[in-house]
Amino acid sequence: MQIDHIGIVVADLDETLRLYTQTLGFEQCYRETVIDQGVEVVGLSAGDSIVELLRPLQPDSPLLRFLGQARSKIHHTAYRVSDLPAKLAELKARGVALIDETPRRGAHGNAIAFLHPKSTNGVLVELCQRISHE
Amino acid sequence: MQIDHIGIVVADLDETLRLYTQTLGFEQCYRETVIDQGVEVVGLSAGDSIVELLRPLQPDSPLLRFLGQARSKIHHTAYRVSDLPAKLAELKARGVALIDETPRRGAHGNAIAFLHPKSTNGVLVELCQRISHE
Repeated sequence: MQIDHIGIVVADLDETLRLYTQTLGFEQCYRETVIDQGVEVVGLSAGDSIVELLRPLQPDSPLLRFLGQARSKIHHTAYRVSDLPAKLAELKARGVALIDETPRRGAHGNAIAFLHPKSTNGVLVELCQRISHE
Repeated sequence: MQIDHIGIVVADLDETLRLYTQTLGFEQCYRETVIDQGVEVVGLSAGDSIVELLRPLQPDSPLLRFLGQARSKIHHTAYRVSDLPAKLAELKARGVALIDETPRRGAHGNAIAFLHPKSTNGVLVELCQRISHE
């Protein structure tokens, strides 16, 4: 298991992006809108992992309720797996509750699935299988 | 910049450790008490990064207030730097507020410093310089 990315919900994407790039020294590696998840996403290179800044697009987004009055808040951790359908089947057999029983498309075209926080002690855990874009 | 570790505050260390090792498949790489920070820490190997489970030792720990009624909650992200004193001086010169103006000892003997959340849009950011134990 390795960290694929951490997801940080932000109120102001450009302000937070300036913080991470100009002040902290990260490099942006992609910026895109993920319609399925209702977010605009910036990926920041962090070694073999990514720091993802997520701006909710809809005023009724659950991410905005999660954010509350904060300007940014760590929302989830995503761990990279090589075979996401097999990993989901294995976890389901172990009794883990899944938000996504089958993979769906995440940022940067990767296959993702969320586990249910009731099975992960309250922390939102995403599993991510990287899809080659070459 | 790369992710050194993510810190997850937990109410029950053994229960959460079983979740991460037996269910999710992580391997434990260290378990220790960090007196300075008032926590028992388990490090889980996640590629070149670590997932750190943090159990507060004192009933008046700010980490317990952060945790609230949750069983676990993502507390901070730590980014690895090669020269922590130089990085802190650079950030201070840029106007970033620091919790730790000079490095202190973190888990696994590493040198760490926290930036002040008021300068990082509310997310607690730690910088970490790995100290060789060989």
